[in-house]
Parts: sequence; structure tokens; C-alpha cells
Amino acid sequence: MKALVFNKELSFDKNYAKPVPKENEALIKITYAGICNTDVEITKGYMGFTGICGHEFLGIVEEINGEDKSLLNKRVTGGINLGCQNCKDCASGLERHCKNRQTLGIYKKDGCFAEYITLPLSNLVEIPEEISDKEAILIEPLAAALEILEQVHIEPNSKIAVLGDGKLGLLISMVLSTTPADVVTIGKHQNKLDILNKQGIKTKLLQDATEEKYYDIVVEATGSVSGFEKSVSLTKPRGILVLKSTIASEKPLNLSMIVVDEITIVGSRCGQFPPAIRLLKKKPFDLSELISAVYPFDEALNAFQKAQEKGVLKVILKF
Amino acid sequence: MKALVFNKELSFDKNYAKPVPKENEALIKITYAGICNTDVEITKGYMGFTGICGHEFLGIVEEINGEDKSLLNKRVTGGINLGCQNCKDCASGLERHCKNRQTLGIYKKDGCFAEYITLPLSNLVEIPEEISDKEAILIEPLAAALEILEQVHIEPNSKIAVLGDGKLGLLISMVLSTTPADVVTIGKHQNKLDILNKQGIKTKLLQDATEEKYYDIVVEATGSVSGFEKSVSLTKPRGILVLKSTIASEKPLNLSMIVVDEITIVGSRCGQFPPAIRLLKKKPFDLSELISAVYPFDEALNAFQKAQEKGVLKVILKF
Repeated sequence: MKALVFNKELSFDKNYAKPVPKENEALIKITYAGICNTDVEITKGYMGFTGICGHEFLGIVEEINGEDKSLLNKRVTGGINLGCQNCKDCASGLERHCKNRQTLGIYKKDGCFAEYITLPLSNLVEIPEEISDKEAILIEPLAAALEILEQVHIEPNSKIAVLGDGKLGLLISMVLSTTPADVVTIGKHQNKLDILNKQGIKTKLLQDATEEKYYDIVVEATGSVSGFEKSVSLTKPRGILVLKSTIASEKPLNLSMIVVDEITIVGSRCGQFPPAIRLLKKKPFDLSELISAVYPFDEALNAFQKAQEKGVLKVILKF
Repeated sequence: MKALVFNKELSFDKNYAKPVPKENEALIKITYAGICNTDVEITKGYMGFTGICGHEFLGIVEEINGEDKSLLNKRVTGGINLGCQNCKDCASGLERHCKNRQTLGIYKKDGCFAEYITLPLSNLVEIPEEISDKEAILIEPLAAALEILEQVHIEPNSKIAVLGDGKLGLLISMVLSTTPADVVTIGKHQNKLDILNKQGIKTKLLQDATEEKYYDIVVEATGSVSGFEKSVSLTKPRGILVLKSTIASEKPLNLSMIVVDEITIVGSRCGQFPPAIRLLKKKPFDLSELISAVYPFDEALNAFQKAQEKGVLKVILKF
């Protein structure tokens, strides 16, 4: 099959071996795939991954190795973490924290920038017909945004700031705005903030966000050290700072205000797909403007370039 | 009065003006004072404080400016944060987070390394006779240790590691060991760990703490960046890392594992005195070995030197 492989550099392999589903796995023919910042990071060496990258996908189940054939020919996406199924984390539904997990296109498991992938049946979720292909391709990052609701109790009267107007920041703002909390999104790009404004979600340019120690909850979604430091200053004493993007500081970092103001930092990563699907079915927000460009799979290298341009949100590949 | 004043350097002033209690304040004659790491930090420039430092004290109320004279001539200690009494934090009993607070011997308020201090009556707590002077002088740091119980739900079956065998680490270990949780203290100094061992509290040398992602709760009480990094590695996915010491990184710091493992970091600082007093009355642990030396107030400069020696725990001043 044709696959986009990363091995020191990103290139097409037209004769990559088509994967074979193990017991209780499905073979899925990819129809769409999304390019995530993590994919871009992988091409810069993140996780030391080599192989087929990509973990946001939509596809059709073409073959099932197992008794339950109910997903055959269905439109599906799926959870990206493959747990060992033998540990306490897996037993409690937390495969995404299993110490021996593989992660689709990120760690020890070929990803979805290819004509086919395999995944355990238990990872797959069927996409209801009310949800379009272009909404469905955003289920994985939407689940990551919803993870915040799994971890943090959002009170109806909470004052919340989302810092960052990248695609994850915008998704998080849309998700948090489904609650009655008072949410404002702070970013640097008026054109991106306007996507939220059109949907009635409050925004503010970074230069105007001069509040100090004001918000009950601040979500850091910039991925930058300066964004982290700004998030700390926006959080009120005893408030919560949700760390949504991985930050490796390139300079010394002062954590003393975390202690002095007794701030709680909640690291937050992948989420579960079923709630994302339930929420999408209700159409509480418009995701269409989050997709900046659609490229045929053959032009994936150009798509990767596009995804790294300033001002570009989600870039997807059509198979 | 005689006072130990910090102004670029630490020195005695024999003619410092005796403070005058404002309305609803008491004048307290100091009998004991403890030297805290924060005091040492202040003499190195922390908080830009100038004036009388010191915030751990025991004293006798000598004068009250107010109608309620019930504390007159009583043995007292007191909360170190003076709130504005006009804000939401103060109204909810969180004077220690009031944005306009003064802090005894730390910020805008003369401290207790002097013959007299003043404090609001509402900050004072009477010491019951069951509690000795040398136990009472540890109430402030004990309250700081108890703050963890106010912020974090310690489940009976929690696996907890306390990292650091300084005086705060030892106090935290004693406090957490009053719960049924499984607590181990990890440190570099066998002699300090032995103080805990004698009381039946489990300990481990740092070199033997090779567990990874194991503990439900890890308390960082080393104050070092390497201690913080070790604490992260000891914490299990979705676990809690209590940050008890202020850390200013002198080198780049990678926060990505906080996100990948969805760790919650809880900044933790000062605590409330009444629960510390209730706990001390029950004598659940022996604090005597935490005091390394007692100096007469006149020898406070030597006491400061002693407090900075390796292996030394609490140094107190007797007036």
C-alpha cells in the first residue's frame, strides 16, 4: 500500500506492507486523516518515532478478525492508545495511561497516513450519520478538549480564560462554552478569534488581557513558555491552571508563584471518543472554519508544509 | 527595644521603636522565635524585604487595644498573614491569599526577631498548657504541613512519597503518617531519616528510590529542581504532586511529562493554626529532635549561621 513514512525524513513508500489485523482487530481503509502539531513535532524528532505517522483518521472497516462483525463496512474513527489489557490502568478503562501502551503513529504503532491501518475493535467508534466527514475528522482533538471536563469540575459560575487561539485552543473554547461558565479566549490573532466571536464566544487580544490573578480556571493551550507564565499570572490564588500543551522550557522557569498562590496545575492530554460523538450530534458549535485546507493524500508533503504556515488551522488529507 | 534588622545586611538595633498596637491588635512580648529557610532567603534578597524578619514565634500578650481582653497575659502564637479585611478572600477566611496582605517578617510588616511584635487579635491563638514551648514554636511550619490535608484528599489506601528530609519534609511525613495512608519519606541523610524511623515511619535513601510512576501522591519538599524532576518521575499517571517548596529553576525545565501523564500539581504554602494545635494536643509524634539548637536572642547572628549549616534542622532563639 501507499504510506507516508518518517525515517529521518518524511517520504512516500508505495510498497509498504499492508497491515494484517490480529485477533479482535479490524482493518480500516482510511478516507480522511488530519495533520496534528504532534505529527509535525515527530518529523522534528519527537518520541524518536520512525514509521507511518498520523493519528487523526476517519475510515471504513474493511475486514474484521474476530466474531463480532457489527462494525464491518461502517464509518469509524478510533482511540489512538493500545493498552496491554493486562494492567490495572487497562482494567479501569485508562488504556491511555497503560505503561506498555502503543500509540497510533506516535509510539511503536504505524499510524494513519497510509491507505490502511489496523486497530483493536475496542478502540473503534462508529460515526453516526448526523456527523459529517469533516466534523468526524476532528473527533480526536475534540476528545482531547473534552478531557478537561473529565478532570476538572467546571462550576456554572466559574470565570475561565483559554490562552491560545490555535486549533486546540479554539476547540477548547467551543467545548467550555457549552457550559454556563463565563469563558473568554485570549489570543494573538484577530482572524482566529473572530471564528469564536461569530459563535457568540467572548475573546480578547493578548495585549488587552491585563487581568492579574483573576480567573478561577485558566487553560494553557499556547505551547510556549511565555504562554505558561502568562497563564500563571492570570490564575487567581487557589485557582486551576489546565496545562493542555506540552512545554519544554528553553529557559529557566520560576515555579514559586505556583506555591505562593497555591495554584493547582492539571496536566491534560487525550480524551474519550464517545462523549465527543454525543456532543457533536447536538451541533452546539460550528467546526467548519477550523479546517483550513484539504489536500489529496498524494500531496501530503505539501499539506505538511501548509500545516506549518502561520495562521493555518487544521489541514486534512483526503484519500 | 532590641531588634534584629535586615537592611542589606543583618544586624542588631538596640533602639528600634517598640510597635504600638492598632485597634483590635495586641502587643506581644516574644519568648521564642524560630529561624525558617525563608528568613535565610530574605537575607539573600528574597521579597526585597527590609526591616525586622522572623515569622515563627511564641509570646505573651502584654497589651490589647480593643474591648476583648480575653487573651491578655496568655501564651500565644499567631497566623502570619494580615489581610485587608475588605476583600472576598478575607471574607472567606483566606487572609493568606488576600492581594493586599502584609506578612509578618516577610512583606511590609516587621517580624518577630525582636522583643515585641503587634498582630491583630484575630490572628492569635492561645497555646493550651499540654503543649510545650518547644512544640509550640513549630506550630507555624506544622500548619504549613497540615495545609496539604486541606488541599488534597488523602485516601486511606493512598501510596504517598515525601521527597526531602529537611525540617519541612520531616514535619510533612509526621503529619501524613497520622493518616492510614502508606507513607514513605525519601531523603539523602540517614541521620535525619532515622528521626522518622524511630517513630515507625518508613524511609528510603534517594539512591534506593528507583520506583517510576508508582505513587498516588508525591510531596516535593526539597526545594531543588532535581527534586522536582524526581518527584515527577515518582508520580503515577493521573497522580498528584504537591509542590511544597518554592522552586526557581536555574536551568530549562521540561513540563511535558505533566501533560503526558496528566499529573496534577498542587502548590501548597501556609496553613491554619487551630488544626495544628488540635493535632499537637494528641501527641501523635515527637517533634523534639527537629530542634537542633537553641540560642539566646543576643546570639542570633550565630544562630543564623548555625541554621545554614548542613545537617542542621530547626534553630530557635530564646528571649
